[in-house]
Amino acid sequence: MHQNIIIGSIGTYTPANQINNSFYINHFNSIGVDVSGLLKHLSSETRYIADHNTENVITMAYEAAVKALKSANLDPTEIDLLIFCTDTPEQLTPTNALLLHDKLHTTNANQIFDMNSNCISMLSGLDVASRILSSNSRINKALVVGSFMGSLIASEYDPVCYSTFGDAAVAVILYKTEESYKRGFIDANFKTNTIIKDFYRFPSCGFSQIYNPNIDIEDKKLKSNSFDMSMICKDWIELMSSLCTKYDVDKHSIKQFFLSQFSKPEIEKTLEMMGVELNKYTFIGNKYGYTGLTGPLLAYNEALVNKSIHIGDYIMFCSMGAGYNLCAILYKL
Amino acid sequence: MHQNIIIGSIGTYTPANQINNSFYINHFNSIGVDVSGLLKHLSSETRYIADHNTENVITMAYEAAVKALKSANLDPTEIDLLIFCTDTPEQLTPTNALLLHDKLHTTNANQIFDMNSNCISMLSGLDVASRILSSNSRINKALVVGSFMGSLIASEYDPVCYSTFGDAAVAVILYKTEESYKRGFIDANFKTNTIIKDFYRFPSCGFSQIYNPNIDIEDKKLKSNSFDMSMICKDWIELMSSLCTKYDVDKHSIKQFFLSQFSKPEIEKTLEMMGVELNKYTFIGNKYGYTGLTGPLLAYNEALVNKSIHIGDYIMFCSMGAGYNLCAILYKL
Repeated sequence: MHQNIIIGSIGTYTPANQINNSFYINHFNSIGVDVSGLLKHLSSETRYIADHNTENVITMAYEAAVKALKSANLDPTEIDLLIFCTDTPEQLTPTNALLLHDKLHTTNANQIFDMNSNCISMLSGLDVASRILSSNSRINKALVVGSFMGSLIASEYDPVCYSTFGDAAVAVILYKTEESYKRGFIDANFKTNTIIKDFYRFPSCGFSQIYNPNIDIEDKKLKSNSFDMSMICKDWIELMSSLCTKYDVDKHSIKQFFLSQFSKPEIEKTLEMMGVELNKYTFIGNKYGYTGLTGPLLAYNEALVNKSIHIGDYIMFCSMGAGYNLCAILYKL
Repeated sequence: MHQNIIIGSIGTYTPANQINNSFYINHFNSIGVDVSGLLKHLSSETRYIADHNTENVITMAYEAAVKALKSANLDPTEIDLLIFCTDTPEQLTPTNALLLHDKLHTTNANQIFDMNSNCISMLSGLDVASRILSSNSRINKALVVGSFMGSLIASEYDPVCYSTFGDAAVAVILYKTEESYKRGFIDANFKTNTIIKDFYRFPSCGFSQIYNPNIDIEDKKLKSNSFDMSMICKDWIELMSSLCTKYDVDKHSIKQFFLSQFSKPEIEKTLEMMGVELNKYTFIGNKYGYTGLTGPLLAYNEALVNKSIHIGDYIMFCSMGAGYNLCAILYKL
């Protein structure tokens, strides 16, 4: 018998307010910047932006979690572990996990915490939850939520972030099961390299200066610089290939790849360099914008809805967090 | 043979600037509040406050981590996993973990992330690291750091937080070992109950309102209210007793208890209610103030320095995070 950690259900949430490219093209035109080429290159079309007066990462995560619980036909009291993944928290005290726990009434989720590894937070959270499930006999069902409100931290003078970020939340329920064959979470592979640690900074002044009245509000937001993505494609391939080799899974037998949803060309470039067919990825960045840590899971959900993946299929998640750190996860449905 | 997860070494850091009770008593006298009784009740004497222009949670964690590595005679490249625990982060992007990784040159620590469960963050981080070590064959040595800069977020009008908080960092190196007997991390026990979720809030306005110019700076800091600690003492006893029962460890054979360092009377009340001798705890809150998540580990370090614990002894960590959530860890040296 195998002890498997499987995704029991998934729920997603995007705010009601859909915004088209034209809004950002006009906004940046008014300050003399043309973002039309960038948006075309990234295949952006629409994104959804939260109402900052009524929504935050916790309310968004709640909507996603309610759907995931309903889809799994689970009562909130059946959850043992709750991990809240975000790099745009609403609170630091108490944790977003605790406030979500309160809203959801997950009264038996005694182990709860927030996690942040930027845009790989959701993949990291799934890895951590899987390790806890597999090594702690008290934990049988985990709720891992990811919530991103990039619209709150992006400076309206930052062409890349402001014009591409979309807000979204995703919730995944992981089960521990005993089955006669191996499936579910197979393994994760990480890489950290700090060479671009200064390219994305939030808050750019650091929290130790956040109350300094002499610092401009723009310097309290996210500061970003562009960098060459090609080195990342190579690292992604190395992480994914090494998982395939370790578990004797032919790369051609991976049914779908759910990569970072920032740039469609970079996904295609990665799969091309890897020698994988270009019909084996799901891209939702055109519809939802760049939704940070939620992207690979939103893509996975889309593939489930589209029925492009089925029980028994191998799939691969792979993404990148600021600084940078990378994570690839091999999973069997 | 047993696979054990043991604390290989510990390093601590407190800033140079020591502040006595008299400073806080005078400060609050000037606004018509008397904190002398509170400080006497909590057994406070001194605390150390960081220089907000030259120090932050990352620089403090770095100092503690360098000591832990040196004490373990380890090269930074031997670390496989780096977890940065804090509820007063300096950055959200990139993570504090990534910036510490860069400063320390822990070039092989590919899996890194930030974690927050408020004042139990360091105990939660040790639990998570232990689960990863025990279930991931690639991970053999983990660095878990905790860093708290409460002085940054406390309002100078808040008698409890402003007068009791002290800044500090702690770093723990965990090893995976194969030994003929069971020791090290035995198990952790958690409890979450959200009945006081509104009693501590940071930022009190929520980050979704942090850039709102109409909100006063005081409402962007920590807001706190007092509550009855007696229910917490009962919960702590339940968590610790259930670990003792599960692993057949007599409570009298626990050599030392390292509890929340907020209040000496509450520690004594807990041990008294539990029926444990009052010479079995270490309190460092008098010297360091309330240093949040670092407290139980600073106390553990003090007990090592004082030689009040030895190889083969059982010890118990137990603390409380805002909202509230609790964690107890049973450990055998």
